[in-house]
Amino acid sequence: MGGHNDQAYEEGNTDVSLCHLAVCLVSGGMDSCVTAAIAREENEELAFLHVSYGQRTEARERRAFVELADHFGIAKRLAVSIEYLKAVGGSSLTDASIPVAEADLISRKIPSSYVPFRNSHLLAIAASWAEVIGARRIYIGAVAEDSSGYPDCRPEFYEAFQRVIEAGTRPETILDIVTPVIHSRKAEIVRRGLELGAPLELTWSCYQSEDPACGRCDSCALRLRAFGEAGTPDPIAYA
Amino acid sequence: MGGHNDQAYEEGNTDVSLCHLAVCLVSGGMDSCVTAAIAREENEELAFLHVSYGQRTEARERRAFVELADHFGIAKRLAVSIEYLKAVGGSSLTDASIPVAEADLISRKIPSSYVPFRNSHLLAIAASWAEVIGARRIYIGAVAEDSSGYPDCRPEFYEAFQRVIEAGTRPETILDIVTPVIHSRKAEIVRRGLELGAPLELTWSCYQSEDPACGRCDSCALRLRAFGEAGTPDPIAYA
Repeated sequence: MGGHNDQAYEEGNTDVSLCHLAVCLVSGGMDSCVTAAIAREENEELAFLHVSYGQRTEARERRAFVELADHFGIAKRLAVSIEYLKAVGGSSLTDASIPVAEADLISRKIPSSYVPFRNSHLLAIAASWAEVIGARRIYIGAVAEDSSGYPDCRPEFYEAFQRVIEAGTRPETILDIVTPVIHSRKAEIVRRGLELGAPLELTWSCYQSEDPACGRCDSCALRLRAFGEAGTPDPIAYA
Repeated sequence: MGGHNDQAYEEGNTDVSLCHLAVCLVSGGMDSCVTAAIAREENEELAFLHVSYGQRTEARERRAFVELADHFGIAKRLAVSIEYLKAVGGSSLTDASIPVAEADLISRKIPSSYVPFRNSHLLAIAASWAEVIGARRIYIGAVAEDSSGYPDCRPEFYEAFQRVIEAGTRPETILDIVTPVIHSRKAEIVRRGLELGAPLELTWSCYQSEDPACGRCDSCALRLRAFGEAGTPDPIAYA
Protein backbone atom coordinates (compact mmCIF):
# COMPACT_ATOMS: atom_id res chain seq x y z
CA MET A 1 0.00 0.00 0.00
CA GLY A 2 1.12 3.63 0.31
CA GLY A 3 2.74 3.65 -3.11
CA HIS A 4 3.25 -0.09 -3.36
CA ASN A 5 1.37 -2.31 -5.72
CA ASP A 6 0.29 -5.62 -4.29
CA GLN A 7 0.12 -7.18 -7.73
CA ALA A 8 3.78 -6.39 -8.25
CA TYR A 9 4.66 -8.50 -5.25
CA GLU A 10 2.42 -11.34 -6.24
CA GLU A 11 3.79 -11.54 -9.74
CA GLY A 12 7.37 -11.50 -8.51
CA ASN A 13 8.11 -8.20 -10.18
CA THR A 14 11.69 -7.30 -9.29
CA ASP A 15 11.23 -3.54 -9.88
CA VAL A 16 10.41 -3.03 -6.20
CA SER A 17 13.22 -0.99 -4.69
CA LEU A 18 15.25 -2.80 -2.06
CA CYS A 19 14.44 -1.60 1.43
CA HIS A 20 17.01 -1.70 4.21
CA LEU A 21 14.90 -3.17 7.00
CA ALA A 22 11.36 -4.54 7.17
CA VAL A 23 9.30 -6.05 9.97
CA CYS A 24 7.59 -9.29 9.00
CA LEU A 25 4.69 -10.65 11.07
CA VAL A 26 5.24 -14.39 11.37
CA SER A 27 2.44 -16.39 12.99
CA GLY A 28 4.08 -19.68 12.03
CA GLY A 29 1.45 -20.49 9.41
CA MET A 30 1.80 -21.09 5.70
CA ASP A 31 0.76 -17.62 4.56
CA SER A 32 3.21 -15.82 6.82
CA CYS A 33 6.01 -18.22 5.83
CA VAL A 34 5.51 -17.47 2.13
CA THR A 35 5.14 -13.75 2.93
CA ALA A 36 8.52 -13.91 4.71
CA ALA A 37 10.07 -15.61 1.66
CA ILE A 38 8.72 -12.82 -0.55
CA ALA A 39 9.90 -10.15 1.91
CA ARG A 40 13.40 -11.64 1.87
CA GLU A 41 13.57 -10.94 -1.87
CA GLU A 42 12.57 -7.32 -1.41
CA ASN A 43 14.55 -6.20 1.64
CA GLU A 44 18.14 -6.21 2.84
CA GLU A 45 17.21 -7.32 6.32
CA LEU A 46 14.12 -8.67 8.01
CA ALA A 47 12.98 -8.41 11.62
CA PHE A 48 10.54 -11.18 12.60
CA LEU A 49 7.64 -10.46 14.94
CA HIS A 50 5.45 -13.15 16.51
CA VAL A 51 2.36 -12.37 18.53
CA SER A 52 0.60 -15.02 20.58
CA TYR A 53 -2.79 -14.22 22.10
CA GLY A 54 -3.76 -17.08 24.36
CA GLN A 55 -4.97 -19.21 21.44
CA ARG A 56 -5.23 -22.99 21.82
CA THR A 57 -2.19 -23.85 19.72
CA GLU A 58 0.02 -21.06 21.03
CA ALA A 59 3.02 -23.22 21.97
CA ARG A 60 3.08 -25.05 18.63
CA GLU A 61 2.84 -21.79 16.68
CA ARG A 62 5.64 -20.25 18.68
CA ARG A 63 7.84 -23.27 17.89
CA ALA A 64 7.07 -22.78 14.20
CA PHE A 65 8.07 -19.11 14.54
CA VAL A 66 11.41 -19.97 16.12
CA GLU A 67 12.16 -22.64 13.49
CA LEU A 68 11.24 -20.26 10.67
CA ALA A 69 13.37 -17.46 12.15
CA ASP A 70 16.31 -19.88 12.43
CA HIS A 71 15.76 -21.05 8.84
CA PHE A 72 15.77 -17.48 7.51
CA GLY A 73 18.76 -16.52 9.71
CA ILE A 74 16.92 -13.69 11.45
CA ALA A 75 18.88 -11.83 14.15
CA LYS A 76 16.21 -9.27 15.05
CA ARG A 77 13.26 -11.17 16.46
CA LEU A 78 10.57 -10.31 18.97
CA ALA A 79 7.90 -12.63 20.36
CA VAL A 80 5.24 -10.99 22.48
CA SER A 81 2.05 -12.12 24.14
CA ILE A 82 -1.23 -10.25 24.06
CA GLU A 83 -3.06 -12.82 26.10
CA TYR A 84 -5.40 -10.10 27.34
CA LEU A 85 -7.33 -11.16 24.22
CA LYS A 86 -8.18 -14.28 26.22
CA ALA A 87 -9.73 -12.03 28.90
CA VAL A 88 -11.57 -10.14 26.15
CA GLY A 89 -12.86 -13.46 24.77
CA GLY A 90 -15.50 -13.82 22.09
CA SER A 91 -13.61 -16.37 19.96
CA SER A 92 -13.35 -20.15 19.85
CA LEU A 93 -9.57 -19.73 19.51
CA THR A 94 -9.17 -18.12 22.92
CA ASP A 95 -12.22 -19.33 24.87
CA ALA A 96 -12.15 -23.03 25.72
CA SER A 97 -15.94 -23.00 26.26
CA ILE A 98 -16.60 -22.18 22.58
CA PRO A 99 -15.81 -25.26 20.42
CA VAL A 100 -13.64 -24.91 17.31
CA ALA A 101 -16.13 -25.53 14.50
CA GLU A 102 -15.55 -28.11 11.81
CA ALA A 103 -14.70 -26.59 8.47
CA ASP A 104 -17.40 -24.63 6.63
CA LEU A 105 -15.88 -23.24 3.46
CA ILE A 106 -19.25 -22.65 1.79
CA SER A 107 -21.20 -20.14 3.91
CA ARG A 108 -19.92 -16.58 4.02
CA LYS A 109 -20.65 -16.11 7.72
CA ILE A 110 -17.86 -14.92 9.98
CA PRO A 111 -16.79 -18.09 11.84
CA SER A 112 -16.55 -18.53 15.62
CA SER A 113 -12.76 -18.53 15.28
CA TYR A 114 -12.85 -14.78 14.53
CA VAL A 115 -10.80 -13.04 17.25
CA PRO A 116 -12.40 -9.61 17.44
CA PHE A 117 -10.28 -7.01 15.66
CA ARG A 118 -7.15 -9.08 16.23
CA ASN A 119 -5.10 -7.87 13.31
CA SER A 120 -5.26 -4.27 14.52
CA HIS A 121 -3.27 -5.42 17.57
CA LEU A 122 -0.69 -7.11 15.35
CA LEU A 123 -0.27 -4.00 13.21
CA ALA A 124 -0.05 -1.70 16.24
CA ILE A 125 2.77 -3.79 17.72
CA ALA A 126 4.54 -4.07 14.37
CA ALA A 127 4.31 -0.32 13.79
CA SER A 128 5.61 0.56 17.28
CA TRP A 129 8.56 -1.79 16.82
CA ALA A 130 9.21 -0.63 13.27
CA GLU A 131 9.26 2.98 14.42
CA VAL A 132 11.84 2.22 17.13
CA ILE A 133 14.19 0.07 14.99
CA GLY A 134 13.81 2.21 11.88
CA ALA A 135 12.08 -0.34 9.62
CA ARG A 136 10.32 1.07 6.57
CA ARG A 137 7.85 -1.69 5.83
CA ILE A 138 5.55 -4.11 7.66
CA TYR A 139 4.77 -7.39 5.88
CA ILE A 140 1.66 -9.31 6.86
CA GLY A 141 0.36 -12.48 5.21
CA ALA A 142 -3.34 -11.62 5.26
CA VAL A 143 -5.51 -13.42 2.67
CA ALA A 144 -8.83 -11.81 1.75
CA GLU A 145 -11.06 -13.77 -0.60
CA ASP A 146 -9.84 -17.36 -0.37
CA SER A 147 -10.04 -17.43 3.40
CA SER A 148 -12.33 -17.57 6.41
CA GLY A 149 -13.95 -14.19 5.81
CA TYR A 150 -12.51 -12.32 8.79
CA PRO A 151 -13.21 -8.58 8.39
CA ASP A 152 -9.67 -7.66 9.46
CA CYS A 153 -8.18 -9.56 6.52
CA ARG A 154 -9.74 -7.34 3.84
CA PRO A 155 -7.67 -4.89 1.78
CA GLU A 156 -9.74 -1.90 2.99
CA PHE A 157 -8.72 -2.70 6.57
CA TYR A 158 -5.02 -2.44 5.65
CA GLU A 159 -5.58 0.71 3.59
CA ALA A 160 -7.33 2.30 6.58
CA PHE A 161 -4.56 1.21 8.97
CA GLN A 162 -1.96 2.74 6.64
CA ARG A 163 -3.65 6.12 7.22
CA VAL A 164 -3.54 5.53 11.00
CA ILE A 165 0.23 4.94 10.81
CA GLU A 166 0.69 8.13 8.80
CA ALA A 167 -1.37 10.15 11.30
CA GLY A 168 -0.13 8.56 14.53
CA THR A 169 3.66 8.23 14.21
CA ARG A 170 6.50 10.79 14.19
CA PRO A 171 6.48 13.10 11.14
CA GLU A 172 9.81 11.62 9.96
CA THR A 173 8.57 8.01 10.18
CA ILE A 174 7.96 6.42 6.78
CA LEU A 175 6.32 3.04 7.10
CA ASP A 176 4.27 1.07 4.58
CA ILE A 177 2.07 -1.96 5.20
CA VAL A 178 2.73 -4.62 2.55
CA THR A 179 0.24 -7.46 1.99
CA PRO A 180 1.85 -9.52 -0.79
CA VAL A 181 -0.62 -12.44 -0.78
CA ILE A 182 -3.87 -10.65 0.07
CA HIS A 183 -5.45 -11.27 -3.35
CA SER A 184 -3.92 -14.74 -3.84
CA ARG A 185 -5.74 -18.01 -3.75
CA LYS A 186 -4.27 -20.41 -1.18
CA ALA A 187 -3.06 -22.77 -3.92
CA GLU A 188 -1.12 -19.90 -5.50
CA ILE A 189 0.48 -19.22 -2.12
CA VAL A 190 1.63 -22.85 -1.93
CA ARG A 191 3.07 -22.65 -5.46
CA ARG A 192 4.76 -19.32 -4.74
CA GLY A 193 6.25 -20.83 -1.58
CA LEU A 194 7.62 -23.81 -3.49
CA GLU A 195 9.17 -21.51 -6.13
CA LEU A 196 10.89 -19.45 -3.44
CA GLY A 197 12.05 -22.48 -1.46
CA ALA A 198 9.95 -21.48 1.57
CA PRO A 199 10.18 -24.13 4.33
CA LEU A 200 6.49 -25.11 4.39
CA GLU A 201 7.37 -28.22 6.40
CA LEU A 202 8.14 -25.97 9.38
CA THR A 203 4.77 -24.21 9.36
CA TRP A 204 1.70 -24.82 11.51
CA SER A 205 -1.90 -23.93 10.63
CA CYS A 206 -4.23 -26.05 12.79
CA TYR A 207 -6.52 -24.15 15.19
CA GLN A 208 -7.42 -27.18 17.28
CA SER A 209 -4.45 -29.45 18.04
CA GLU A 210 -0.77 -29.10 18.78
CA ASP A 211 0.50 -32.19 16.91
CA PRO A 212 -0.55 -33.80 14.64
CA ALA A 213 -2.88 -31.30 12.94
CA CYS A 214 -6.60 -32.16 13.26
CA GLY A 215 -7.36 -31.97 9.52
CA ARG A 216 -10.95 -30.88 10.22
CA CYS A 217 -10.96 -27.24 11.38
CA ASP A 218 -11.35 -24.35 8.92
CA SER A 219 -7.66 -23.65 8.86
CA CYS A 220 -6.67 -27.28 8.15
CA ALA A 221 -9.39 -27.56 5.49
CA LEU A 222 -8.20 -24.43 3.69
CA ARG A 223 -4.61 -25.64 3.82
CA LEU A 224 -5.33 -29.17 2.63
CA ARG A 225 -7.47 -27.86 -0.24
CA ALA A 226 -4.64 -25.50 -1.23
CA PHE A 227 -2.01 -28.26 -1.37
CA GLY A 228 -4.52 -30.43 -3.27
CA GLU A 229 -5.12 -27.74 -5.87
CA ALA A 230 -1.40 -27.06 -6.12
CA GLY A 231 -0.89 -30.78 -6.81
CA THR A 232 1.72 -31.30 -4.13
CA PRO A 233 1.52 -33.16 -0.80
CA ASP A 234 1.34 -31.17 2.43
CA PRO A 235 4.59 -32.02 4.27
CA ILE A 236 3.11 -31.88 7.80
CA ALA A 237 1.40 -34.73 9.70
CA TYR A 238 -2.37 -35.01 10.12
CA ALA A 239 -4.42 -37.10 12.56
CA MET B 1 -16.43 11.13 15.26
CA GLY B 2 -18.53 8.97 13.04
CA GLY B 3 -21.54 11.26 13.27
CA HIS B 4 -20.63 12.77 16.63
CA ASN B 5 -19.57 16.33 17.14
CA ASP B 6 -16.74 16.84 19.60
CA GLN B 7 -17.83 20.42 20.30
CA ALA B 8 -21.22 19.16 21.44
CA TYR B 9 -19.55 17.08 24.14
CA GLU B 10 -17.27 19.85 25.24
CA GLU B 11 -20.07 22.36 25.62
CA GLY B 12 -22.18 19.95 27.62
CA ASN B 13 -24.85 19.80 24.94
CA THR B 14 -27.48 17.38 26.18
CA ASP B 15 -28.85 16.58 22.71
CA VAL B 16 -26.49 13.61 22.44
CA SER B 17 -28.66 10.50 22.43
CA LEU B 18 -28.16 8.25 25.43
CA CYS B 19 -26.16 5.15 24.56
CA HIS B 20 -26.64 1.90 26.44
CA LEU B 21 -23.02 0.93 27.00
CA ALA B 22 -19.70 2.65 26.32
CA VAL B 23 -16.09 1.67 26.96
CA CYS B 24 -14.06 4.41 28.63
CA LEU B 25 -10.27 4.30 28.59
CA VAL B 26 -9.11 5.34 32.05
CA SER B 27 -5.38 5.81 32.55
CA GLY B 28 -5.88 7.29 35.99
CA GLY B 29 -4.92 10.81 34.88
CA MET B 30 -6.91 14.01 34.99
CA ASP B 31 -8.02 13.99 31.35
CA SER B 32 -9.41 10.45 31.47
CA CYS B 33 -11.16 11.18 34.79
CA VAL B 34 -12.98 14.18 33.30
CA THR B 35 -13.68 12.18 30.12
CA ALA B 36 -15.29 9.48 32.29
CA ALA B 37 -17.40 12.11 34.05
CA ILE B 38 -18.58 13.38 30.63
CA ALA B 39 -19.20 9.82 29.41
CA ARG B 40 -21.34 9.13 32.47
CA GLU B 41 -23.69 11.93 31.38
CA GLU B 42 -24.06 10.48 27.90
CA ASN B 43 -24.40 6.74 28.49
CA GLU B 44 -26.52 4.41 30.57
CA GLU B 45 -23.57 2.26 31.58
CA LEU B 46 -19.81 2.54 31.37
CA ALA B 47 -17.16 -0.16 31.13
CA PHE B 48 -13.73 1.05 32.34
CA LEU B 49 -10.56 -0.12 30.59
CA HIS B 50 -7.06 0.45 31.96
CA VAL B 51 -3.93 -0.39 30.00
CA SER B 52 -0.52 -0.41 31.63
CA TYR B 53 2.56 -0.72 29.46
CA GLY B 54 5.56 -1.10 31.71
CA GLN B 55 5.76 2.63 32.39
CA ARG B 56 7.60 3.89 35.49
CA THR B 57 4.49 4.86 37.46
CA GLU B 58 2.42 1.83 36.47
CA ALA B 59 1.43 0.77 40.01
CA ARG B 60 0.35 4.26 41.04
CA GLU B 61 -1.72 4.70 37.87
CA ARG B 62 -3.43 1.36 38.36
CA ARG B 63 -4.36 2.40 41.92
CA ALA B 64 -5.89 5.59 40.51
CA PHE B 65 -7.86 3.48 37.99
CA VAL B 66 -9.28 1.24 40.72
CA GLU B 67 -10.20 4.20 42.92
CA LEU B 68 -11.87 5.97 39.99
CA ALA B 69 -13.79 2.82 38.99
CA ASP B 70 -14.96 2.45 42.60
CA HIS B 71 -15.97 6.11 42.72
CA PHE B 72 -18.03 5.82 39.52
CA GLY B 73 -19.54 2.49 40.64
CA ILE B 74 -18.28 0.59 37.58
CA ALA B 75 -19.08 -3.14 37.47
CA LYS B 76 -17.52 -3.90 34.07
CA ARG B 77 -13.82 -3.23 34.36
CA LEU B 78 -10.77 -4.65 32.65
CA ALA B 79 -7.14 -3.91 33.41
CA VAL B 80 -4.60 -5.33 30.98
CA SER B 81 -0.87 -5.07 30.54
CA ILE B 82 0.91 -4.51 27.25
CA GLU B 83 4.33 -4.53 28.77
CA TYR B 84 5.75 -5.75 25.48
CA LEU B 85 5.99 -1.99 24.86
CA LYS B 86 8.85 -2.11 27.35
CA ALA B 87 10.59 -4.66 25.10
CA VAL B 88 9.87 -2.43 22.11
CA GLY B 89 11.37 0.53 24.00
CA GLY B 90 12.13 3.93 22.50
CA SER B 91 10.55 5.99 25.28
CA SER B 92 11.70 7.48 28.57
CA LEU B 93 8.49 6.19 30.13
CA THR B 94 9.33 2.54 29.53
CA ASP B 95 13.15 2.54 29.27
CA ALA B 96 14.93 3.26 32.55
CA SER B 97 18.11 4.22 30.65
CA ILE B 98 16.37 7.24 29.03
CA PRO B 99 15.82 9.95 31.67
CA VAL B 100 12.40 11.59 32.00
CA ALA B 101 13.07 15.14 30.78
CA GLU B 102 12.19 18.20 32.82
CA ALA B 103 9.23 20.07 31.42
CA ASP B 104 9.60 21.88 28.09
CA LEU B 105 6.26 23.39 27.20
CA ILE B 106 7.75 25.82 24.66
CA SER B 107 9.40 23.79 21.91
CA ARG B 108 7.12 21.82 19.59
CA LYS B 109 9.46 18.81 19.44
CA ILE B 110 8.04 15.38 20.24
CA PRO B 111 9.40 14.68 23.75
CA SER B 112 11.35 11.59 24.87
CA SER B 113 8.27 10.45 26.78
CA TYR B 114 6.55 9.62 23.46
CA VAL B 115 5.73 5.89 23.51
CA PRO B 116 5.77 4.97 19.81
CA PHE B 117 2.24 4.66 18.45
CA ARG B 118 0.92 3.82 21.92
CA ASN B 119 -2.64 5.03 21.50
CA SER B 120 -3.25 2.63 18.60
CA HIS B 121 -2.74 -0.22 21.08
CA LEU B 122 -5.23 1.35 23.50
CA LEU B 123 -7.85 1.75 20.78
CA ALA B 124 -7.31 -1.79 19.45
CA ILE B 125 -7.91 -3.26 22.91
CA ALA B 126 -10.90 -1.00 23.52
CA ALA B 127 -12.44 -1.92 20.16
CA SER B 128 -11.95 -5.68 20.67
CA TRP B 129 -13.56 -5.47 24.10
CA ALA B 130 -16.36 -3.19 22.90
CA GLU B 131 -17.16 -5.61 20.07
CA VAL B 132 -17.42 -8.54 22.49
CA ILE B 133 -19.52 -6.78 25.18
CA GLY B 134 -21.66 -4.87 22.68
CA ALA B 135 -20.56 -1.33 23.55
CA ARG B 136 -21.34 1.34 20.96
CA ARG B 137 -18.78 3.98 21.88
CA ILE B 138 -15.15 4.25 23.00
CA TYR B 139 -14.25 7.34 25.05
CA ILE B 140 -10.62 8.45 25.20
CA GLY B 141 -9.30 11.57 26.91
CA ALA B 142 -6.76 12.58 24.28
CA VAL B 143 -5.77 16.26 24.24
CA ALA B 144 -4.32 17.65 21.03
CA GLU B 145 -3.09 21.22 21.12
CA ASP B 146 -2.54 22.01 24.79
CA SER B 147 -0.41 18.96 25.37
CA SER B 148 2.97 17.36 24.77
CA GLY B 149 2.60 17.13 20.99
CA TYR B 150 2.36 13.35 20.64
CA PRO B 151 1.28 12.45 17.08
CA ASP B 152 -1.23 9.86 18.33
CA CYS B 153 -3.18 12.54 20.22
CA ARG B 154 -4.22 14.49 17.12
CA PRO B 155 -7.81 14.47 15.80
CA GLU B 156 -6.71 13.05 12.43
CA PHE B 157 -5.32 9.98 14.18
CA TYR B 158 -8.73 9.25 15.75
CA GLU B 159 -10.57 9.95 12.49
CA ALA B 160 -8.28 7.46 10.72
CA PHE B 161 -8.74 4.85 13.46
CA GLN B 162 -12.51 5.23 13.18
CA ARG B 163 -12.18 4.05 9.55
CA VAL B 164 -10.09 1.05 10.72
CA ILE B 165 -12.85 0.04 13.14
CA GLU B 166 -15.44 0.29 10.38
CA ALA B 167 -13.32 -1.84 8.02
CA GLY B 168 -11.99 -4.38 10.52
CA THR B 169 -14.94 -5.40 12.71
CA ARG B 170 -18.09 -7.45 12.05
CA PRO B 171 -20.54 -5.81 9.61
CA GLU B 172 -23.15 -5.47 12.39
CA THR B 173 -20.72 -3.78 14.81
CA ILE B 174 -21.43 -0.07 15.28
CA LEU B 175 -18.73 1.61 17.31
CA ASP B 176 -17.73 5.27 17.50
CA ILE B 177 -14.59 6.77 18.99
CA VAL B 178 -15.46 9.80 21.12
CA THR B 179 -12.78 12.31 22.14
CA PRO B 180 -14.67 14.86 24.23
CA VAL B 181 -11.69 16.93 25.41
CA ILE B 182 -9.43 16.74 22.36
CA HIS B 183 -9.76 20.44 21.50
CA SER B 184 -9.89 21.66 25.12
CA ARG B 185 -7.21 23.56 26.95
CA LYS B 186 -6.10 21.80 30.12
CA ALA B 187 -7.56 24.59 32.31
CA GLU B 188 -10.96 24.03 30.65
CA ILE B 189 -10.67 20.34 31.47
CA VAL B 190 -10.09 21.18 35.14
CA ARG B 191 -13.10 23.52 35.15
CA ARG B 192 -15.29 20.96 33.39
CA GLY B 193 -14.22 18.34 35.91
CA LEU B 194 -15.14 20.60 38.82
CA GLU B 195 -18.58 21.33 37.27
CA LEU B 196 -19.24 17.61 36.87
CA GLY B 197 -17.97 16.70 40.33
CA ALA B 198 -15.16 14.57 38.88
CA PRO B 199 -12.90 13.22 41.68
CA LEU B 200 -9.68 14.95 40.57
CA GLU B 201 -8.14 14.17 43.96
CA LEU B 202 -8.01 10.48 42.95
CA THR B 203 -6.10 11.07 39.71
CA TRP B 204 -2.40 10.66 38.98
CA SER B 205 -0.44 12.41 36.22
CA CYS B 206 3.27 12.30 37.13
CA TYR B 207 5.57 10.42 34.72
CA GLN B 208 8.47 10.20 37.14
CA SER B 209 7.45 9.34 40.70
CA GLU B 210 4.89 7.19 42.43
CA ASP B 211 4.10 9.51 45.40
CA PRO B 212 4.33 12.44 45.82
CA ALA B 213 4.29 13.75 42.24
CA CYS B 214 7.63 15.23 41.09
CA GLY B 215 6.19 18.57 39.94
CA ARG B 216 8.89 18.92 37.27
CA CYS B 217 8.12 16.50 34.39
CA ASP B 218 6.04 17.57 31.36
CA SER B 219 2.93 15.94 32.70
CA CYS B 220 3.17 17.59 36.15
CA ALA B 221 3.98 20.96 34.54
CA LEU B 222 0.94 20.78 32.23
CA ARG B 223 -1.28 19.80 35.14
CA LEU B 224 -0.01 22.48 37.53
CA ARG B 225 -0.35 25.16 34.85
CA ALA B 226 -3.94 23.99 34.19
CA PHE B 227 -4.98 24.23 37.83
CA GLY B 228 -3.21 27.60 38.06
CA GLU B 229 -5.13 28.96 35.07
CA ALA B 230 -8.38 27.49 36.40
CA GLY B 231 -7.74 29.37 39.67
CA THR B 232 -8.13 26.34 41.90
CA PRO B 233 -5.54 24.35 43.89
CA ASP B 234 -4.46 20.92 42.64
CA PRO B 235 -5.68 18.49 45.34
CA ILE B 236 -2.76 16.03 45.02
CA ALA B 237 0.60 16.21 46.85
CA TYR B 238 3.85 17.39 45.18
CA ALA B 239 7.47 16.93 46.26
